[in-house]
Amino acid sequence: MAVTRVGHVELFSADLDRSADFYVDVLGLIETERDDDHVYLRCLEDREHHTLILTRAAGNGLGHIGFRVDDPADLDALAAAYRADGIDVVEVDAEEERAQGPAIRLRDPLGFPVEFYHRVEPVARTLRTHGNRGPSRLDHLNLRLPGPVDAGVAYYRERLGFLISEYALHPDGTTFAAWLHRKQTTHDVALVQGPGTLIHHVGLYVPESHDVLHVADRMAARGMQAQIEFGPGRHGITNAFFSYIRDPDDNRIEIYSGDYLIPDPDFEPVAWTAEEFEATGRLAWGARPPASMYEGQPVADWSRPPARASA
Amino acid sequence: MAVTRVGHVELFSADLDRSADFYVDVLGLIETERDDDHVYLRCLEDREHHTLILTRAAGNGLGHIGFRVDDPADLDALAAAYRADGIDVVEVDAEEERAQGPAIRLRDPLGFPVEFYHRVEPVARTLRTHGNRGPSRLDHLNLRLPGPVDAGVAYYRERLGFLISEYALHPDGTTFAAWLHRKQTTHDVALVQGPGTLIHHVGLYVPESHDVLHVADRMAARGMQAQIEFGPGRHGITNAFFSYIRDPDDNRIEIYSGDYLIPDPDFEPVAWTAEEFEATGRLAWGARPPASMYEGQPVADWSRPPARASA
Amino acid sequence: MAVTRVGHVELFSADLDRSADFYVDVLGLIETERDDDHVYLRCLEDREHHTLILTRAAGNGLGHIGFRVDDPADLDALAAAYRADGIDVVEVDAEEERAQGPAIRLRDPLGFPVEFYHRVEPVARTLRTHGNRGPSRLDHLNLRLPGPVDAGVAYYRERLGFLISEYALHPDGTTFAAWLHRKQTTHDVALVQGPGTLIHHVGLYVPESHDVLHVADRMAARGMQAQIEFGPGRHGITNAFFSYIRDPDDNRIEIYSGDYLIPDPDFEPVAWTAEEFEATGRLAWGARPPASMYEGQPVADWSRPPARASA
Amino acid sequence: MAVTRVGHVELFSADLDRSADFYVDVLGLIETERDDDHVYLRCLEDREHHTLILTRAAGNGLGHIGFRVDDPADLDALAAAYRADGIDVVEVDAEEERAQGPAIRLRDPLGFPVEFYHRVEPVARTLRTHGNRGPSRLDHLNLRLPGPVDAGVAYYRERLGFLISEYALHPDGTTFAAWLHRKQTTHDVALVQGPGTLIHHVGLYVPESHDVLHVADRMAARGMQAQIEFGPGRHGITNAFFSYIRDPDDNRIEIYSGDYLIPDPDFEPVAWTAEEFEATGRLAWGARPPASMYEGQPVADWSRPPARASA
Repeated sequence: MAVTRVGHVELFSADLDRSADFYVDVLGLIETERDDDHVYLRCLEDREHHTLILTRAAGNGLGHIGFRVDDPADLDALAAAYRADGIDVVEVDAEEERAQGPAIRLRDPLGFPVEFYHRVEPVARTLRTHGNRGPSRLDHLNLRLPGPVDAGVAYYRERLGFLISEYALHPDGTTFAAWLHRKQTTHDVALVQGPGTLIHHVGLYVPESHDVLHVADRMAARGMQAQIEFGPGRHGITNAFFSYIRDPDDNRIEIYSGDYLIPDPDFEPVAWTAEEFEATGRLAWGARPPASMYEGQPVADWSRPPARASA
Repeated sequence: MAVTRVGHVELFSADLDRSADFYVDVLGLIETERDDDHVYLRCLEDREHHTLILTRAAGNGLGHIGFRVDDPADLDALAAAYRADGIDVVEVDAEEERAQGPAIRLRDPLGFPVEFYHRVEPVARTLRTHGNRGPSRLDHLNLRLPGPVDAGVAYYRERLGFLISEYALHPDGTTFAAWLHRKQTTHDVALVQGPGTLIHHVGLYVPESHDVLHVADRMAARGMQAQIEFGPGRHGITNAFFSYIRDPDDNRIEIYSGDYLIPDPDFEPVAWTAEEFEATGRLAWGARPPASMYEGQPVADWSRPPARASA
Repeated sequence: MAVTRVGHVELFSADLDRSADFYVDVLGLIETERDDDHVYLRCLEDREHHTLILTRAAGNGLGHIGFRVDDPADLDALAAAYRADGIDVVEVDAEEERAQGPAIRLRDPLGFPVEFYHRVEPVARTLRTHGNRGPSRLDHLNLRLPGPVDAGVAYYRERLGFLISEYALHPDGTTFAAWLHRKQTTHDVALVQGPGTLIHHVGLYVPESHDVLHVADRMAARGMQAQIEFGPGRHGITNAFFSYIRDPDDNRIEIYSGDYLIPDPDFEPVAWTAEEFEATGRLAWGARPPASMYEGQPVADWSRPPARASA
Repeated sequence: MAVTRVGHVELFSADLDRSADFYVDVLGLIETERDDDHVYLRCLEDREHHTLILTRAAGNGLGHIGFRVDDPADLDALAAAYRADGIDVVEVDAEEERAQGPAIRLRDPLGFPVEFYHRVEPVARTLRTHGNRGPSRLDHLNLRLPGPVDAGVAYYRERLGFLISEYALHPDGTTFAAWLHRKQTTHDVALVQGPGTLIHHVGLYVPESHDVLHVADRMAARGMQAQIEFGPGRHGITNAFFSYIRDPDDNRIEIYSGDYLIPDPDFEPVAWTAEEFEATGRLAWGARPPASMYEGQPVADWSRPPARASA
């Protein structure tokens, strides 16, 4: 069984038109398709129908995370494994999520709404033909758990085969935060101890540092200064150059660039003590984040995973 | 009398819609206004109604150069001085050129169609409010003269008060090329020996090197590879990072960045021998330009300067 | 009489070796020469022996500001004008400041130690030959005055011929801050109301935004996070992309890029209300500066201007 | 069996001091260690003792390619497989190549000198602590084969598990060139039809486009214009922004940035016809390479693989 990467993410929005305009016109994503309750978006290098879905809802939050698996047979194997642990798994048909093949849905042991899929309708990659500037790809999700993340890390490693790139320890040896990956970048998923079971941000990768700055300029040009939450800055952990922004529904997006490649499966994870994390890990250049940066957004409750597309 | 800068340039186009689309959508200029025979464009920092006019014509070429003077009274002083030299000067009223105040027009001693003006209708500068990427300003014109440019340099220095930033000498001591400025950059006008009385290019300034690269990507995305004539590269002279492109009518535009500021009026010009010019002056990184780069485009014949706007 | 630009600045340092290492190895300046009590530095485009002098002292602060004048005769005219206002002017010989010609020194009406000079020994400009990355030029000084800066602006305009690029008004119509220039950038000197007669920062210009980021990376690599005070960010006023850092003596330096050119002497200054200044003028992207950013560093007391070089 | 990536490359040099100075001072690599006949270099993100070895020799050329395998047991499996094909395999002990564990050496079926290894002594990664600018990693090798590369592609896919990212076909359906990868970038190895069994270039990855430009500026500053062979430019294939340079021995290096990530093992390779390859595949912006770009450099003859380190 192999998850190849975080494949897509569904975010909630109270105003689809306003949100789509923001993601396309300000951030530079491509709109593939739209229906009454969803906008299907992708980044410039993405080759699938969508990697970001905006779904009409009362407020913001995470609808679900989609992990792509390498082989359709992985879906059955995963369903069996989750069920053996007493977890409800719902099998959904092709097109239950627009443009997607058969998939399984479940509330994972950490409390997050997760979908596994193999196939999504391909679209022409725009890489060589766009001449635009915008995010290259959906890069990662940063999730918050209400206590040390050791059990969360164990779940991702053991059930889903994720590897650790970097991690930070409490003085008592428990894990405060871990960066976990399947694709060969620093992470597909980060687990960080926080004030609940929440999503902290969706990371969108841009190729160069000026692309990070440009997003802030675009937002300022729209009078959206209040939605530029923190940055630009440099993380010590992952080495990334970042800016944290809020979409019009206050979903947090990290415009992200400059981490490193991890081609070796035996890469020795980079360890940070709590002291190092505070000194240079969180922020290599030493600024202080605003209090709002410690907040997360809610995640959909899939204690009964939906068999029909959310609406 | 003081010219403050090259203020605007008029280029000919056989297809205004096609040209305007190129300048706005590919290069990032702003269209201020359009009438049947003209498109009025400006760059992001420009505060005047237009700094680039596209005028309907049979083919490409330079319509005229507009130099801004510091004081309205300079127009009379200049007219008198040119007439004293036996040059026909036509005085035109405000709005003879759209949005422009009173101006004078003449064929300068080098053979170029030149207009002097003081006032053009101001427009809101977009600098802080655009969030776009495009040229900051009309930067310079590069003109070709059929022999050594010593007399041309003398004319620009003596009549118009230009200063020399850099120049290149033939082995016989005559001047092959000179970069001349009124504003405090390396040039408003370059005079270079060439195959005739021609315009070689219009230089548009962009703030950073990636902006130069982006124009090439935008053109490639449009299938306009054949119009990317030369570059990107680095000039030794002026230190600029550049790309030479052709607009849809084959007017040559230099996308230009990275030269230096010259705040001191007694700046000692940088001298290049012919040998140095060929070795590293023309191209600091050593490539060879294609033969087409030695060609220029025609300039309007103002042996009788027009009293009515060209059409 | 014409000041051409801020020509050099003298900063105090308690440890010249430590400071010189910082300015050369971290920031990328060039050391021209050193004696027991001074280190003479310049930026990459500078053509004079020094534009930044580090002078041995008990702590940090501004030693003096050097303004370059266009003509040696300006020194006599300025001396006479200041004396007519009852200000002590000391004339110093060539080499009183290393490599500098004759100069005059005085405590200006705003309380700052100021020197006017015409000639400093030229050095080879490194522009085309360095291949290094570092500041291009000494760009500006930001000075603090203990109340509204209207009188300060009047002094700079009337005595020294400075022009205003941008300014911010209190609700009562007095001026909170003004950006003043002689060279054709947004400023050589900014005057801002603050907690005393202080220097806030020295601005060093770098060509591109990644150069601003690189300084922070270099400092982080040295374990100097605590000296990265604020940024990177974008000013609304001047449009500059910046980072504020502290040198090893806590002199504040702004690494500065991306403002605009002002070739026209009748440029209409950009006006900001107090409300606009707080909303987007100070910071176009909306962050909050730390409290330390409201502090300044002391300036040398030239109530008796020195006739001998400080030591 | 799994090759994880191209791990290191050995290049020949007639003057080690001159070469090391170039790679360290101009390109920004890190020198780990040096002995009489070798200089061991690495890039900023590399965590191994060396990824580039310069070895004293009469002239330039490829000493050998080192592929890293995932598991020490892979070495035995590979040796057996090659021997079953009648290929001589030499097993060498740890430290036969400085800092490397046990390895196997052979002349591969395409004629290239190849080493497989699992372990090289780790070194501290400099990523977060350098503050320098230089290549992030050894990215790829571009090899030339004397005819269509179909058999070469089959060998890399079947024996070593490489995947194809992009390829270009002759009109007769044979393969002119193919980009092959194990790590999740566009390539570890490119095979291109050319004038012999040769190495065309070593690709070093830099993070941003300005880093590509900076190498050219550094070389120009050293008077090395003649060694800047081609570029900067954009490849259509891989989308990379590049510059081709020659080291002091005329080994060709590609300074390389901006290709894309391939996390999915079932990524559908991008196909180019010969016509598309010439139009926009080789060069997205349409320039013409100089004739020298069609030349390669020799590769060491390992028809008898060495059991002792070359000297």
